[in-house]
Amino acid sequence: MSTIALCGSEAQKQKYLPSLAQFKTVGCWALTEPDYGSDASSLKTSATKVPGGWQLDGQKRWIGNSTFADVLVILARNADTKQLNGFIVKKGAPGLRATKIQNKIGLRMVQNGDILLNKVFVPEEDRLTGINSFQDISKVLAMSRIMVAWQPIGISMGVYDMCHRYLKERKQFGAPLAAFQLNQEKLVRMLGNIQAMLLVGWRLCKLYESGKMTPGHASLGKAWTSSKSREVVSLGRELLGGNGILADFLVAKAFCDLEPIYSYEGTYDINSLVTGREITGIASFKPAAVAKSRL
Amino acid sequence: MSTIALCGSEAQKQKYLPSLAQFKTVGCWALTEPDYGSDASSLKTSATKVPGGWQLDGQKRWIGNSTFADVLVILARNADTKQLNGFIVKKGAPGLRATKIQNKIGLRMVQNGDILLNKVFVPEEDRLTGINSFQDISKVLAMSRIMVAWQPIGISMGVYDMCHRYLKERKQFGAPLAAFQLNQEKLVRMLGNIQAMLLVGWRLCKLYESGKMTPGHASLGKAWTSSKSREVVSLGRELLGGNGILADFLVAKAFCDLEPIYSYEGTYDINSLVTGREITGIASFKPAAVAKSRL
Amino acid sequence: MSTIALCGSEAQKQKYLPSLAQFKTVGCWALTEPDYGSDASSLKTSATKVPGGWQLDGQKRWIGNSTFADVLVILARNADTKQLNGFIVKKGAPGLRATKIQNKIGLRMVQNGDILLNKVFVPEEDRLTGINSFQDISKVLAMSRIMVAWQPIGISMGVYDMCHRYLKERKQFGAPLAAFQLNQEKLVRMLGNIQAMLLVGWRLCKLYESGKMTPGHASLGKAWTSSKSREVVSLGRELLGGNGILADFLVAKAFCDLEPIYSYEGTYDINSLVTGREITGIASFKPAAVAKSRL
Amino acid sequence: MSTIALCGSEAQKQKYLPSLAQFKTVGCWALTEPDYGSDASSLKTSATKVPGGWQLDGQKRWIGNSTFADVLVILARNADTKQLNGFIVKKGAPGLRATKIQNKIGLRMVQNGDILLNKVFVPEEDRLTGINSFQDISKVLAMSRIMVAWQPIGISMGVYDMCHRYLKERKQFGAPLAAFQLNQEKLVRMLGNIQAMLLVGWRLCKLYESGKMTPGHASLGKAWTSSKSREVVSLGRELLGGNGILADFLVAKAFCDLEPIYSYEGTYDINSLVTGREITGIASFKPAAVAKSRL
Repeated sequence: MSTIALCGSEAQKQKYLPSLAQFKTVGCWALTEPDYGSDASSLKTSATKVPGGWQLDGQKRWIGNSTFADVLVILARNADTKQLNGFIVKKGAPGLRATKIQNKIGLRMVQNGDILLNKVFVPEEDRLTGINSFQDISKVLAMSRIMVAWQPIGISMGVYDMCHRYLKERKQFGAPLAAFQLNQEKLVRMLGNIQAMLLVGWRLCKLYESGKMTPGHASLGKAWTSSKSREVVSLGRELLGGNGILADFLVAKAFCDLEPIYSYEGTYDINSLVTGREITGIASFKPAAVAKSRL
Repeated sequence: MSTIALCGSEAQKQKYLPSLAQFKTVGCWALTEPDYGSDASSLKTSATKVPGGWQLDGQKRWIGNSTFADVLVILARNADTKQLNGFIVKKGAPGLRATKIQNKIGLRMVQNGDILLNKVFVPEEDRLTGINSFQDISKVLAMSRIMVAWQPIGISMGVYDMCHRYLKERKQFGAPLAAFQLNQEKLVRMLGNIQAMLLVGWRLCKLYESGKMTPGHASLGKAWTSSKSREVVSLGRELLGGNGILADFLVAKAFCDLEPIYSYEGTYDINSLVTGREITGIASFKPAAVAKSRL
Repeated sequence: MSTIALCGSEAQKQKYLPSLAQFKTVGCWALTEPDYGSDASSLKTSATKVPGGWQLDGQKRWIGNSTFADVLVILARNADTKQLNGFIVKKGAPGLRATKIQNKIGLRMVQNGDILLNKVFVPEEDRLTGINSFQDISKVLAMSRIMVAWQPIGISMGVYDMCHRYLKERKQFGAPLAAFQLNQEKLVRMLGNIQAMLLVGWRLCKLYESGKMTPGHASLGKAWTSSKSREVVSLGRELLGGNGILADFLVAKAFCDLEPIYSYEGTYDINSLVTGREITGIASFKPAAVAKSRL
Repeated sequence: MSTIALCGSEAQKQKYLPSLAQFKTVGCWALTEPDYGSDASSLKTSATKVPGGWQLDGQKRWIGNSTFADVLVILARNADTKQLNGFIVKKGAPGLRATKIQNKIGLRMVQNGDILLNKVFVPEEDRLTGINSFQDISKVLAMSRIMVAWQPIGISMGVYDMCHRYLKERKQFGAPLAAFQLNQEKLVRMLGNIQAMLLVGWRLCKLYESGKMTPGHASLGKAWTSSKSREVVSLGRELLGGNGILADFLVAKAFCDLEPIYSYEGTYDINSLVTGREITGIASFKPAAVAKSRL
């Protein structure tokens, strides 16, 4: 949806956004492929010019909502220009198939799908005119990274509240768990991280609103909040003891949900290297030619 | 089973151990109660002397296998002596009910149960004569902590193998994941921890075999291997990226399984304090009287 | 100086503050004693009423500037009320001796001293009328904790700048150190922590200015920034390799300076427990009666 | 000394080893150069064939004992073969100068020097015939890494003993520091790491003695023990509070000494990558060509 808002033509916005905004239709956004995750910019799904439009061929993976979405934004490589383009594909399009990925340990309420595109036709009017290179996609990614940076903040706050209540109610050795030094220190460590996360998330939004946010800001924000939150939910899991492994208590669920959050919308490492490139001017994504060194 | 072996009479061993050893019958061991986990020695389930035997009343929680076990060892407080005693209860005993605990995020192949004991009668011959205080139970705990200390070692080795293979097969940016510095360092960190864990587990067994193992040795061993393994599976989870959140790949499952292991058979904190008591001579389990301090 | 400002009479402020503010005179503040550090509120230095004023007896330790200060604020226990009081003592007062503590590994530009008070007379007019209990001292501590919370932020920023420059200039394997993944990730981790620290420090000041800052806010702020900064300087130390152990490079010095900062103005643990008390309502400073537990 | 033992001729061994073994003469070993630390195999000091022997030109850095050593082993690049060779240079040789490196924060009892070699002549008989490539030096490095792997073990044991005693003697809040949960857990964490380190060190020696030790074993051992020891001394530093920043107490000194140990004889990262190369078959020391990536 934000892709259409950021990269669509006026006509496309008018056609798709209102019903998406009202949840009458559901959208999804397909960048990742089975062999191109962290290295998404090298994706292989192809878009070939045909009379009246385009033909899409390839595979996508991990696409949230794809199994039931009405409107799918597909990123593909223009067979002529070799640059990335974007296309709107509708549910039920001939040649399109999406299969649900089973057995996730976290974020189970999100249905991720494997998509197969076999000669899927897209009319010219459904090409997103604003996407002409990976550069354009980076803008979309930066904005969605802000949103993902906030997910672990909310989750951490929920976990803190749960733990705070649990420690005051549950007793062992004749005293509430909150009376034990080892438990208090953990709760305080959680709180310190959460306050810092809230401020980092707030600052990120301020930068975005003022037009000063760089991709590095967004990547660092997402990497930092998700990594601190991983600490928070792990401490929370420990504080709940045995009850911390039951999904009935919020904390066990949060503990598992943090893992996909830590790794999607750019893994921790990829977001670190995006930030690292921005602060050093040097890209270090690729390893050296694979060869025995003499050291 | 090990409780009968360690604390049973000769007659009890002959009656129960052969079929348990051949898996013709299944046993379970019930210490923990809803309100007494870390503070297990304060448990409330009562054993009252009645003609021909004993009457058990109370509740147990988290008892593995309890929903289908043929033979249940129940720890209870002798209503007269106030000391802990042990009893063998058979499946289907009137007044006994075990309910499966649902929605665990880890060790899902182990069925834990909530047990209700309502005037359950146990004939005198089924009292374990070797259990006359919590001291006697500590011996059983120390031995089972060795076994639990080995679980994270095995799990970590499996995770390492999985990651090692995955990093060599999966490519991004034109190179196997194993060629990236950030990935290699994680794999090496896993390996270093695993080698140390193996040696710690081996040493623990040597101490036990030579009769020199103390409760502190067992507690430290369990706390240390489970805490290092928690690091290992977390690194492994990260190395597998998106596929690291699918239970189909061993690593996601291991990541979740480590949590109950970290917290059961004594949480990390309780085992630390058991060790701490042994090396300092000071018990620090209980907090001070709950009162506002003036600091 | 801030103690006189917060707890002095109008006459005391007029007498002492102007020259202190102009660095014509130097002040110091003596709370800690050899046997009362974390447990400062139990201090033993005594203040006995004598004709025309007070007599101070006891020892202080770690008092910064005390070897050359013109004006020393001494906290002591009123022999009658058993409450804490504050006194202004002047350099050269009979019975006062301060000895420099040698061989510190960090903050070496601060001279800490051991103070001996042997029947030191203080005229009535030099008693700080605003200090009548430890409560009053807590206010001073909360304010000084804000300042100490900022020290690790400034140090971390200096370390980051130094490392950033070093990584771009120093080459190994034919490339600047900044081109290596392992180095970039460390630099980014430093940056993430620093941005969060800056926001936490800023927020703390806002709370103070608006009159809403609690002791827990100050303690958490100090504990959190000093603990994150400890991470930052440790990463910086590592990034500089061999040169990271030479005090000539700022980073080695910062690495050592962080240690006293981490432990003074309340250790990390004490500040955690001050915060913990505030969020749980339970003080957990004191351990239970020292006795063998039966677990 | 070990270089002469491993790579010297029979005559060289007889000439130099006895007096070195009896400490009548002192040796040193010079590999590192100002611009070649982690990338030592690329060193630039040159050895040019001249009548009757060799001429050495170049610089060395960080060479322990070099300011007073009687016998210096210098590694240099053969101007003809471009391979590395080794030479024995004697104190006072014309053209040789060693200057002490000042202001180290750790391992201050070791004098490291900067060496200048300006047309230093070495007779043919003082060339170490066993060093004909970096491969030969790797053997020396592997052996010395075992020794360096043991240094942090010994230091950690000393720190543990010191802390154990201190916690039992020092009181706060009316109880020995050993009675506090937060302190006990730290002490136990130290002990767990130390036991594992001892076993890892012991295993490394066993592998070496049996001829099965690989360079990866030695590198992993050194990286692992020094990194765990860094944790131990940091915990110890914290446990001693204010006294933990005085070098008079062993712990502050150990805290600083660990830093050079962590970074010398291969930094943590370099040793990780040496191990990583061995377990994956892929060298990842060098970054990719320094170029803007398009991600």
